[in-house]
Amino acid sequence: MRKDRIYTPDFGGVPKASLSAHKGRTVLIAGGAGFIGSNLSRRLIARGDRVICLDNLETGRSENIASLLAHPRFSFILHDVVNPFKLNGTINQIYNLACPASPPKYQKDPIHTFKTCIFGGLNLLELAREKNARILQSSTSEVYGDPDCLLQSEEYRGRVNTVGPRSCYDEGKRAAETLFYETNRQQGVDVRIARIFNTYGPRMDPGDGRVVSNFVVQALSGVPITIYGEGQQTRSFCYIDDLLDGLMALMEADVNLSTVNDPVNIGNPGEFTMRELAQLVLEMTASKSSLTYCDLPADDPRQRRPDISRAGQLLDWAPKVSLIEGLVPTIAYFRGELTKMQGARLEDRYAI
Amino acid sequence: MRKDRIYTPDFGGVPKASLSAHKGRTVLIAGGAGFIGSNLSRRLIARGDRVICLDNLETGRSENIASLLAHPRFSFILHDVVNPFKLNGTINQIYNLACPASPPKYQKDPIHTFKTCIFGGLNLLELAREKNARILQSSTSEVYGDPDCLLQSEEYRGRVNTVGPRSCYDEGKRAAETLFYETNRQQGVDVRIARIFNTYGPRMDPGDGRVVSNFVVQALSGVPITIYGEGQQTRSFCYIDDLLDGLMALMEADVNLSTVNDPVNIGNPGEFTMRELAQLVLEMTASKSSLTYCDLPADDPRQRRPDISRAGQLLDWAPKVSLIEGLVPTIAYFRGELTKMQGARLEDRYAI
Repeated sequence: MRKDRIYTPDFGGVPKASLSAHKGRTVLIAGGAGFIGSNLSRRLIARGDRVICLDNLETGRSENIASLLAHPRFSFILHDVVNPFKLNGTINQIYNLACPASPPKYQKDPIHTFKTCIFGGLNLLELAREKNARILQSSTSEVYGDPDCLLQSEEYRGRVNTVGPRSCYDEGKRAAETLFYETNRQQGVDVRIARIFNTYGPRMDPGDGRVVSNFVVQALSGVPITIYGEGQQTRSFCYIDDLLDGLMALMEADVNLSTVNDPVNIGNPGEFTMRELAQLVLEMTASKSSLTYCDLPADDPRQRRPDISRAGQLLDWAPKVSLIEGLVPTIAYFRGELTKMQGARLEDRYAI
Repeated sequence: MRKDRIYTPDFGGVPKASLSAHKGRTVLIAGGAGFIGSNLSRRLIARGDRVICLDNLETGRSENIASLLAHPRFSFILHDVVNPFKLNGTINQIYNLACPASPPKYQKDPIHTFKTCIFGGLNLLELAREKNARILQSSTSEVYGDPDCLLQSEEYRGRVNTVGPRSCYDEGKRAAETLFYETNRQQGVDVRIARIFNTYGPRMDPGDGRVVSNFVVQALSGVPITIYGEGQQTRSFCYIDDLLDGLMALMEADVNLSTVNDPVNIGNPGEFTMRELAQLVLEMTASKSSLTYCDLPADDPRQRRPDISRAGQLLDWAPKVSLIEGLVPTIAYFRGELTKMQGARLEDRYAI
């Protein structure tokens, strides 16, 4: 890997240059303290927007937005999007990123996860209607369930179990798409639906139980890397900056395009088996962790690979960051998080 | 067809014998004024239950329950199940049959249809939890969408479009299954999920736009029978009495059976193309109606045929009434409805 190919994004605070006067756009990010939401907050503030971050901090983390709290164009509202709320003033755009997204987190309280998708969607759609704001729904590749095709296009109807351990999320997200689609048709609200495939990068929760965070944290900690099944299931991994480019392009896309309200896959079609990912992480962290094999959980998808031709045609978007390139800042981020956590544990131990 | 094979159910009032003292069971039927609900009300009253019928009369019809209103063990509550409600007293069983079920009806206000599935489900589940009642969710073969298999078993994950003209119902019903499943798992509420395939019989709404009512009403009125596409799509038709046997068996099934909370297909595996059904209706009504062909609507399922082996094993249930047998009382019923409607129109015309 040549050094000049290494992608080194700034995942610190907001660039100084962006602290200029507010250019007038106000964006609400529901779930703004989460992995995607907190990265998006920085991008939007950097380009001059005002950001209102709404989060119940259930899976979103205050650390993710700590450095933003003092920013004059950032405000934080602690609120669970499941419950109705009112906001004063103008809102131009709404990103709905509010939902636990990793199986261990969304399975903790499945009915609440389901309500987050449905009630949260309804509350935000109502706000969009009232404010005449454009709204983007973060849907997911999980609407395809355990697919029986190699490449998932937006036309694919999916293979989701309605009554299984993943259904609170998968069906919640499917039903939310229906709700956004119908609110566009019935009430004319301008909705955008992004089907987000696996994404990784700085500000992921080290403990969220997703494969990239699991593998990197395990490798850096020197404990065995957990592979479910034989590790032959595949996933596609999109670096956070590529995802944000895609989401923002979809939000900005011309309203006159007829397909702009249809779901759009946003993901990286590079496909890796879990064993390949584990090997890559081991090499890049120079870790001596072994691999340990566990039973495959019920309804675990065997393959995932987005067909992104619609995003290409509609948004002229494609991911740019390879897995190796994206893992460099991701590993650096997790290394920092682990150091902080060890420090915190030491502080706890020696606290008077 | 020999006369002694003709099935002639009593679809009038409640048998006199059933007017005996209440045997103690109180059953809430949400959607009790609809086609299935009003027939079920009669069956339950006939066996000695007390029935509370909850209906907003949006697609349920007051005619369906008019003859029950004076019954001492029947009570009617005009209420939209989407809105929260409280009921005093004991409730032992709840049947959730509340939802418009034919495409023209459920597409009239798609968001309300969706809310009927989700909010209605939540309100009834909350009531079931509070009253310690067993609850049966009427799910549907529509959870299978436009299937790519000849026979749909409960394991089949379906082919449903989340963003199409049928999705408010299909996804609403799929998501409701998830809600019932999770409420069973998380809160221990005893739920039953019946996936109901096409059903027909007396007390169908002549104007609900479903294929059996359309064909019979068109044949009896001497107007052309409307076939969508080439009429080669298939459906399976279950007579209402068979369906009620299945639903009641599922509701009564022993709680100790491990699979009792899993979805169960209830339908008749006899499969007919739309042209075959049209021919049969024309013959049985001695109608001279022609066939007229219209465009196939978007997402119209090409085939539908239930695998009912789970219902057989779990409930020892199978349908008994053939399509020809069931069409006899159904045609008689529609003939009566049309006569009444003509009478009403004459009354209107000559009203002072």
